Amino acid sequence: MKLYEQYKAHLRKLADLKNAQAVLQWDQEVYLPPKGASLRGQQIATLSEQAHALSTDEKLEHILKELIDSQELKEPERKNVMLSWEDFSKQKKYSPEFVRTMSEAVSKCYHSWIEARKQNSFSVYEKDLDHLIDLKKQETEILGYSAHPYDALLNEYEKDCTVALLDKTFTALHPSLKELLNLVVAKKQVDDSFLHQFYPSQKQWDFGMSLIRKLGFDFDAGRQDISEHPFTTSFNRNDVRITTRIDENNFGNMTWSCIHETGHALYEQGLPESEYGLPSGEYASLGIHESQSRLWENNVGRSLNFWNHEYSTAKSFFPDQLSAVDVNGFYRGINKVEPSLIRTEADELTYHFHVMIRYELEKMLMEGSVSTHDIPAQWNDLYEKYLGVKVPDDKRGCLQDIHWSHGSFGYFPTYSLGSLYAAQFFAAAKRQMPQLLHEIESGNTKNLLAWLRQNIYPWGRLYTSEELCRKATGEGLNTRFFLDYLLDKYGKIYDL
Amino acid sequence: MKLYEQYKAHLRKLADLKNAQAVLQWDQEVYLPPKGASLRGQQIATLSEQAHALSTDEKLEHILKELIDSQELKEPERKNVMLSWEDFSKQKKYSPEFVRTMSEAVSKCYHSWIEARKQNSFSVYEKDLDHLIDLKKQETEILGYSAHPYDALLNEYEKDCTVALLDKTFTALHPSLKELLNLVVAKKQVDDSFLHQFYPSQKQWDFGMSLIRKLGFDFDAGRQDISEHPFTTSFNRNDVRITTRIDENNFGNMTWSCIHETGHALYEQGLPESEYGLPSGEYASLGIHESQSRLWENNVGRSLNFWNHEYSTAKSFFPDQLSAVDVNGFYRGINKVEPSLIRTEADELTYHFHVMIRYELEKMLMEGSVSTHDIPAQWNDLYEKYLGVKVPDDKRGCLQDIHWSHGSFGYFPTYSLGSLYAAQFFAAAKRQMPQLLHEIESGNTKNLLAWLRQNIYPWGRLYTSEELCRKATGEGLNTRFFLDYLLDKYGKIYDL
Repeated sequence: MKLYEQYKAHLRKLADLKNAQAVLQWDQEVYLPPKGASLRGQQIATLSEQAHALSTDEKLEHILKELIDSQELKEPERKNVMLSWEDFSKQKKYSPEFVRTMSEAVSKCYHSWIEARKQNSFSVYEKDLDHLIDLKKQETEILGYSAHPYDALLNEYEKDCTVALLDKTFTALHPSLKELLNLVVAKKQVDDSFLHQFYPSQKQWDFGMSLIRKLGFDFDAGRQDISEHPFTTSFNRNDVRITTRIDENNFGNMTWSCIHETGHALYEQGLPESEYGLPSGEYASLGIHESQSRLWENNVGRSLNFWNHEYSTAKSFFPDQLSAVDVNGFYRGINKVEPSLIRTEADELTYHFHVMIRYELEKMLMEGSVSTHDIPAQWNDLYEKYLGVKVPDDKRGCLQDIHWSHGSFGYFPTYSLGSLYAAQFFAAAKRQMPQLLHEIESGNTKNLLAWLRQNIYPWGRLYTSEELCRKATGEGLNTRFFLDYLLDKYGKIYDL
Repeated sequence: MKLYEQYKAHLRKLADLKNAQAVLQWDQEVYLPPKGASLRGQQIATLSEQAHALSTDEKLEHILKELIDSQELKEPERKNVMLSWEDFSKQKKYSPEFVRTMSEAVSKCYHSWIEARKQNSFSVYEKDLDHLIDLKKQETEILGYSAHPYDALLNEYEKDCTVALLDKTFTALHPSLKELLNLVVAKKQVDDSFLHQFYPSQKQWDFGMSLIRKLGFDFDAGRQDISEHPFTTSFNRNDVRITTRIDENNFGNMTWSCIHETGHALYEQGLPESEYGLPSGEYASLGIHESQSRLWENNVGRSLNFWNHEYSTAKSFFPDQLSAVDVNGFYRGINKVEPSLIRTEADELTYHFHVMIRYELEKMLMEGSVSTHDIPAQWNDLYEKYLGVKVPDDKRGCLQDIHWSHGSFGYFPTYSLGSLYAAQFFAAAKRQMPQLLHEIESGNTKNLLAWLRQNIYPWGRLYTSEELCRKATGEGLNTRFFLDYLLDKYGKIYDL
């Protein structure tokens, strides 16, 4: 069909521009010389402007309208076109002036966040953040919503995600997690001191690379580099880049970042090649993306089954550091639960309190019941209330995340959704493949990857998270799987 | 002036797109995973298409016409506008379809050249090359020419360069070089066996990096990486990337590639920052660019003065390998003259025969007197005729250069022009700074760099090579300087 081919060509051009932008951003994080930063920012902005122009182009509008009117489209073509029409209509809502104002505000806010962190003082960036929050509120009006303004932003990262849905989810989660946390902290703490010895940089790198390879990352279609903060980016399924960082005094930092990013990367490398640039070739949602990283990092990479096989390799890389620790001690140590200040360093249990705090704050900011000025006080109160920890300063408090300075309001909840989906997917995979844990125990994760390739990767974003979850597991999102997983794991580790 | 600001903004956006493309190309040479090649080619093609659209935009046409009509422009604004008008008029000649076809053909040809080299067989890429050559012939018609089709392509790399001019230059050069070569080969050969011992990779890298730093490369505004073939690329004067390669059995390979690319990079890092994206912020021509790399590589980096100071450092890096060689032996060894097969490994004298061979071939290909299929036979004949060497296989013959696979026909002659300009510039610098050689002998190249920063770098491409040469040296290009330089150097080394 000729018109559909035109549609594909247009979307692929758009994908090329976005992926070029991603290459420049990747380079910015891994190899950019310091003085190159300012013009690189401008180069990325120009690509983003060009991409926006292409995504709101009249030609695209005509093609989409004609395709929608025609009766000839079958699935999945029809769904692709409908999703593209949704994207187009949304993009059209933004005036070029608003896009420019937002992009300038983000850039300004990001730099004052850097400065605020340097000075360890929220007030340094309060004004710029307040302006950005004001723009995000305007954005909720531009995008539109029915129940809650925050819904408009949540929907950007996770289609159909709402305050109503998250309130329900977190309300189900909070008391159970709190109860479990209370049980754990009453018990004798596990020993993880062996993780904090000296682990030489090169050895960590080699060990990390061996893990990545074993899990199925295709090094002919991707690579790993070093950056300040680990991330995954993809320029197409045959060029997926992951990064890591190495802390020579912390074995955990690099090891689980490698597994986490590999989870993201396997998803990207598993998206259908023929669908490049189309909705059917893109990841389903941020929550589903995060489910893939967390499934490998936690459900697999922090399981006793996995380390029963892998620990001998770890020991061969680090014989001195690990000589006094058996696999059970190792397993307990890497699963230590402890309320703490920094989200990215939190364990699988307390992590979700960090997310809920941010969610509550964002919700209040968007509905206007809390002002930007109140953020530090609110933040510190919530940390005391949810996790029982006192926040000593802004750097270890409300300045720790980059997200708000980027204007990414509505992003944090997808991290928790990721854990919930991961547990549910892993439970389904185990049900459907009763031998799965035995295979993992013998160092074989191929069938798990095959299951994901069959049940999660092939449809791009033709299904919402909820639809995909139903397809893969037989039911919609259910917090029970994650809670059962935690209860089982910590029940054994902490002898509850 | 408001209109001139609009012009600048437009050109900077265009520069952003071209530089983004350069980032993707750099990444392709240094870090791209193998499977990423095909879609990368498409992404680069899309950027190139977008850049072409911007460079032929009606809005730009209006701005330029209005600026040209207005009487308010002073220099250098007026010259910038005139050069941009020239660029615009030239770009308008290409259809978007032709631009995309060319870009895709280049990408395809490049990958089949890689494969042809692997298989050591020209025929593997003959078909793709033939298609590309056909497109280049079409390009000569699109661009137009008066005397010879090849002129259209030569002009792309070196404004106002023609077959007539190069025939004249090479006719002046050929017999003198031949005569000098005959004198040299009749003499006792110098010993360069010390260059071909084992020089460990990491040590070579460290030595190369120390040289680059000493010559004034700003590592806050650039970096060096490893690639198959050394090259320099710039995304702006604050982000200049050079690459090198290491052969552990050849000390020369990396050392002089480092100096050579540094020469290119110093030029790029020295272009005026405020002129980003404008003709006044771009390099003058490829010949002038090459003069900068060759001036540092040869006139400085292969001189006795330079090594009288630097040799002790080299010895400290490689005490075992260099223990038996004094600085005079080292100097003679690194300047050994010998007819050979590989252009990039050729000495300063025989190098130009390699260029003349390619020049003759390209001229014949463009006028159609030789077909793509005949390239290997013609190549081998010319090597026998010009250099008296027998080409044993395609890899050491017509497959050795990347240029044709990139569609870069008309590029090679700029290498020879580079040597000629370099000799003329260096002679001028010495005349104007009689202490220069003494400074170099004491490890100080700062004033030479300052001279280049004053006489070559500041004008971007506001002057043609010939104009720039006149400004800097008091006369147009004159082969005498290069011939005198060679006669003096080899006269002493070979005791002629």
